[in-house]
Amino acid sequence: MFNAIVSAGTLGTALDSVSVLVEECKIHLNDDGIAIRAVDPANVGMVDLTLSEAAFESYEADGGVIGVNLSRLQDIAGMAGSDDLVHLELDEETRKLHISIDGLEYTLALIDPDSIRQEPDIPDLDLPATIVLEGRDVDRAVTAADMVSDHIALGVNEDAEQFYVDAEGDTDDVHFELDRDDLIDLTVGPAHSLYSLDYLKDMNKAIPSDAEVTLDLGEEFPVKFHFDIAEAEGSVTFMLAPRIQSD
Amino acid sequence: MFNAIVSAGTLGTALDSVSVLVEECKIHLNDDGIAIRAVDPANVGMVDLTLSEAAFESYEADGGVIGVNLSRLQDIAGMAGSDDLVHLELDEETRKLHISIDGLEYTLALIDPDSIRQEPDIPDLDLPATIVLEGRDVDRAVTAADMVSDHIALGVNEDAEQFYVDAEGDTDDVHFELDRDDLIDLTVGPAHSLYSLDYLKDMNKAIPSDAEVTLDLGEEFPVKFHFDIAEAEGSVTFMLAPRIQSD
Amino acid sequence: MFNAIVSAGTLGTALDSVSVLVEECKIHLNDDGIAIRAVDPANVGMVDLTLSEAAFESYEADGGVIGVNLSRLQDIAGMAGSDDLVHLELDEETRKLHISIDGLEYTLALIDPDSIRQEPDIPDLDLPATIVLEGRDVDRAVTAADMVSDHIALGVNEDAEQFYVDAEGDTDDVHFELDRDDLIDLTVGPAHSLYSLDYLKDMNKAIPSDAEVTLDLGEEFPVKFHFDIAEAEGSVTFMLAPRIQSD
Repeated sequence: MFNAIVSAGTLGTALDSVSVLVEECKIHLNDDGIAIRAVDPANVGMVDLTLSEAAFESYEADGGVIGVNLSRLQDIAGMAGSDDLVHLELDEETRKLHISIDGLEYTLALIDPDSIRQEPDIPDLDLPATIVLEGRDVDRAVTAADMVSDHIALGVNEDAEQFYVDAEGDTDDVHFELDRDDLIDLTVGPAHSLYSLDYLKDMNKAIPSDAEVTLDLGEEFPVKFHFDIAEAEGSVTFMLAPRIQSD
Repeated sequence: MFNAIVSAGTLGTALDSVSVLVEECKIHLNDDGIAIRAVDPANVGMVDLTLSEAAFESYEADGGVIGVNLSRLQDIAGMAGSDDLVHLELDEETRKLHISIDGLEYTLALIDPDSIRQEPDIPDLDLPATIVLEGRDVDRAVTAADMVSDHIALGVNEDAEQFYVDAEGDTDDVHFELDRDDLIDLTVGPAHSLYSLDYLKDMNKAIPSDAEVTLDLGEEFPVKFHFDIAEAEGSVTFMLAPRIQSD
Repeated sequence: MFNAIVSAGTLGTALDSVSVLVEECKIHLNDDGIAIRAVDPANVGMVDLTLSEAAFESYEADGGVIGVNLSRLQDIAGMAGSDDLVHLELDEETRKLHISIDGLEYTLALIDPDSIRQEPDIPDLDLPATIVLEGRDVDRAVTAADMVSDHIALGVNEDAEQFYVDAEGDTDDVHFELDRDDLIDLTVGPAHSLYSLDYLKDMNKAIPSDAEVTLDLGEEFPVKFHFDIAEAEGSVTFMLAPRIQSD
């Protein structure tokens, strides 16, 4: 059973953070909210999303799982104004999702969850460094690095107490440093890893520029990006595997 | 003889409603305003436009007919701000239209009217159902239907006193219902017909979202969309032939 | 030695006016400001730009020359908000330009100035007619002429004391006249020349619509467009060679 009402803006934000990695996903319709976990086909980037019951105008569910085409669902949500309410109701018998927006009813065929790539286990890493910064600074770093290279190093300078970003191109380089004053918070620790910009650019698209982003970082370890959505009634964690250092 | 001044906004709106169906058209320069009738090459969609003398800042004409390339004329009108005045003057001798916009003079070669597809007779149908709704609701219905199908059913549920829109795709469906409260007006009658979305999408582009649109509908009959332009000093009627029901 | 701070907006405006003609250029780092001269590969259009020391927040230089890739430098400046400050510092040893924008450091490899096309001598022509007009009128003339032709005639009607623009297409013509009242200033003299619209369209892109543009014109002579940038602390002169009259 699933019967919920949510603002189009909240639904869209949630879907955006998953659709940067995969085209189809399973949505867990838990009794306290929805949950999505997905990994891209290359097993490099993962996303773990929750949107609690409190993010909805009304919410009833009892633990089922549905498979959806994300871009189709995004298109439907995109037809509504961001404050418009979207009513979602699962027809258990036909396995279709009925979506109503102000008189308009859309019947969405669901995808067999078993045909969707298996959900990843998000490893519970204990990473030594934690950086809390604004979404706009992630955007600046990624945009600048993308001008010179296809990979990016993220790290912490323990002595200077700085978070740094490095990108080395064939002729040009980008270096970005944020110290305690520029950051919301910093836990110093040994951290330096290289990541693919292709993935970071996609993840960056889903990070609001005014979000408070928590970054967990280590030495040649995956990076975790965590931020809240839906006025903290939902949360997104991206995890990105490191590239092998080439130098 | 033709010598008229009109705002670029009014001229542009009038041209837009014709250019969604045809690239060239005849313009009748009547003594009480201009009139355009046109049908698309497949004889499926028709437009009937009038723009009365009162929609112009000044207007003099004596019944001639000119042939024009619509996109060219739209480009010229588009160079002006929407409140800028466009001065149109026909040179009978050279068969060119002189267009002046604030010091800029454009000399437009006309097309021989005899070389343009013949104007259609707009059939005077007595359709049983009439729906009056806002342009934005036409847009919602067309946009949603286009997500799942290439055709759309428009009809009236006589018992429930509702106007409805149905689109059936291979896997997904769209259904849209508007009852008396959602509509500006409704005359109930037997009505259900299928139409091509390609045409409806084009016509929809020319319907202002705040226009009051009158829809005349029957059973497997053409639909008529009627709305006013230029502060009711002009009017547009689209007529669209039905598709054969496939089911 | 070169060490300067300038707003991203001012830097961007200066670069834009050169990049419409060439991809790479030499920048002279004079002690009173920077200067760029460049000519397009076909030797048809030239640009002469100066940005004085006063246009910078701080400025130190001693007469060197650097070679830069303009689009790369524009991309970097474009990452900043237009009021953000850009810090430029030349590393003489590595021949790289260090560019800092609010914590972000970009190391730009310079191009060997000797590998860049030689700078043109801007001929010191004494042209008989001078027209001073708003940038937006240049834009209107160029946009309208482009609808009908690939070349444009600029001239002065000495008797009527008018500046005129003519473009003749295969079927349509554009004529634009501005008399003393429409112009900021006019010095009448014999002037009529034909120019390539391809070049004028590019130059037009770099002319702000609210700029006061001075045009020097003669009979089958190059035209000069002159306007100030950076609150008159910089100036741009475009020169465009005439096309041979075809009629």
